Amino acid sequence: MSIQTLVEKIKEKGNPTVAGLDARLEYIPQHISGRNMMLHGETLRAAAESVVAFNCGLIDALCDIVPAVKPQAAYYELLGSYGAMALKETIDYAHAKGMYVIGDIKRNDIGATATAYAEAYLGKTRVGDTEIAPYGCDSVTVNGYLGTDGVEPFLKECRSREKSLFMLVKTSNPSSGELQNRDMEGKPLYARMAEMVAKWGEGLDTPCGYNQIGAVVGATYPEEQKIIRELLPKSYFLVPGYGAQGATAKDIANAFNDDGLGAIVNSSRGIMCAWKKTGNNGEDYKEAARAEAIRMRDDIVNAIK
Amino acid sequence: MSIQTLVEKIKEKGNPTVAGLDARLEYIPQHISGRNMMLHGETLRAAAESVVAFNCGLIDALCDIVPAVKPQAAYYELLGSYGAMALKETIDYAHAKGMYVIGDIKRNDIGATATAYAEAYLGKTRVGDTEIAPYGCDSVTVNGYLGTDGVEPFLKECRSREKSLFMLVKTSNPSSGELQNRDMEGKPLYARMAEMVAKWGEGLDTPCGYNQIGAVVGATYPEEQKIIRELLPKSYFLVPGYGAQGATAKDIANAFNDDGLGAIVNSSRGIMCAWKKTGNNGEDYKEAARAEAIRMRDDIVNAIK
Repeated sequence: MSIQTLVEKIKEKGNPTVAGLDARLEYIPQHISGRNMMLHGETLRAAAESVVAFNCGLIDALCDIVPAVKPQAAYYELLGSYGAMALKETIDYAHAKGMYVIGDIKRNDIGATATAYAEAYLGKTRVGDTEIAPYGCDSVTVNGYLGTDGVEPFLKECRSREKSLFMLVKTSNPSSGELQNRDMEGKPLYARMAEMVAKWGEGLDTPCGYNQIGAVVGATYPEEQKIIRELLPKSYFLVPGYGAQGATAKDIANAFNDDGLGAIVNSSRGIMCAWKKTGNNGEDYKEAARAEAIRMRDDIVNAIK
Repeated sequence: MSIQTLVEKIKEKGNPTVAGLDARLEYIPQHISGRNMMLHGETLRAAAESVVAFNCGLIDALCDIVPAVKPQAAYYELLGSYGAMALKETIDYAHAKGMYVIGDIKRNDIGATATAYAEAYLGKTRVGDTEIAPYGCDSVTVNGYLGTDGVEPFLKECRSREKSLFMLVKTSNPSSGELQNRDMEGKPLYARMAEMVAKWGEGLDTPCGYNQIGAVVGATYPEEQKIIRELLPKSYFLVPGYGAQGATAKDIANAFNDDGLGAIVNSSRGIMCAWKKTGNNGEDYKEAARAEAIRMRDDIVNAIK
């Protein structure tokens, strides 16, 4: 699914946000994890089945109001092969419920290996005469430190399968400036990365006005957002850092264009752990997640009006 | 296992090389993949079981002469959850055969997520009161674009479990210079990254004289090797690019110190696909891999004398 599909879903729902699905076992209510540990013991399988049940509940609660989900690969890799299965099931369920899926994988490698990553997450694996999509995301995050030949295999999937990318430009974490804000031949590194992202997007514009190649730009850095927006007027921004990481709706206004489009704001722990603030035992985690997703949507929509 | 263990294995075998285990189905002889497709059809399971059988054969053929293996995560992720299982089985088998395992994962993320990656590949996952090592590598590769707080969770595993890291500094691919060689406040970016690697290694020296925090430095860039060696005298270098990527033994001499230590050179396709050059059908893949590993060892040991 092209970035155009994401833009249509955002418009349709009037909601420029994405729900991060980064479940650690401690984010999952006891009635789910306890049952699975009773069935399967204290195993990675019990943890992974809890994650799938939790994610499916969240997707059920959010799919009519939130356009996209962003599973973060790390939390699935933490559960070994059961986690890999949980990631695939989560992606398939989100697709079945009509959501756009951004795989937050931040992969980077030399060309031959980047090809394997691109095929794994966006494309297909060939076994004999059969082609199988191991994960089948619509979009993934990619780190461009290795330059063009490490990104090209991902661009190929964008060209041939209408996939989209979000390239790391300015990340949301406190130490991102240690390298990303240092001066590289007259501009900060993040601006040089943005220039390369513009180059990588050549030929990948879509009819909706946005390019298949987007950028990750932290909500926590409003000034950098403004500069990167100027360098990448046609790129969609994936904006992490709202909520748990401390950024507010005001901080992300620069990431958007005047049409209210151009960015999608992520919240992971804010939505997943909303049930911990209701004073109940987690049986209400879907309702709590939905209420938080609506609050976040309204907060952001108001800030960018 | 500490970097000191790797150094001891290198000395004991007189061999500063590592075998990359990056199996694509087309690198695997027909007698292995054909049988698995007969048993399981054209499925990811058939591909993953072929990879495990192939890897175990390679490990059997190499374990008394090669100190380490480096599975590349991408090729396992290409096979979904079966691939994740194949990665774990490969790591366990290499350990059982006494080899050091470098997980080539090139992960990078914000602190909370980097914690999950570090636990997944170097540490343990907690389920209830049980701790489980999902992958249990001795060392992993990490991309430092996000700065200190994205690296700290990996450093923590180095401190508490004697693990080691190889940070991407100057990668072996043709376009690595697009960003890595550009000037950042008077030095190329790769040199700035090397300075940060030195800082991340503080407090992580080991009695053998080398630090737990190493660097990835491409065989294809001998001049940069020299500069990085000066900036990181106590770091082990993981050197990809020999063989299939075009670098020769002469090109990697700068990566080593005068004692013949300080670097470990990777070959993946050269060893895995050696059987394709014998004119046979692949039944001799173990012998071909072993012969190539010995040729490579002698080639490199002679070049650094």
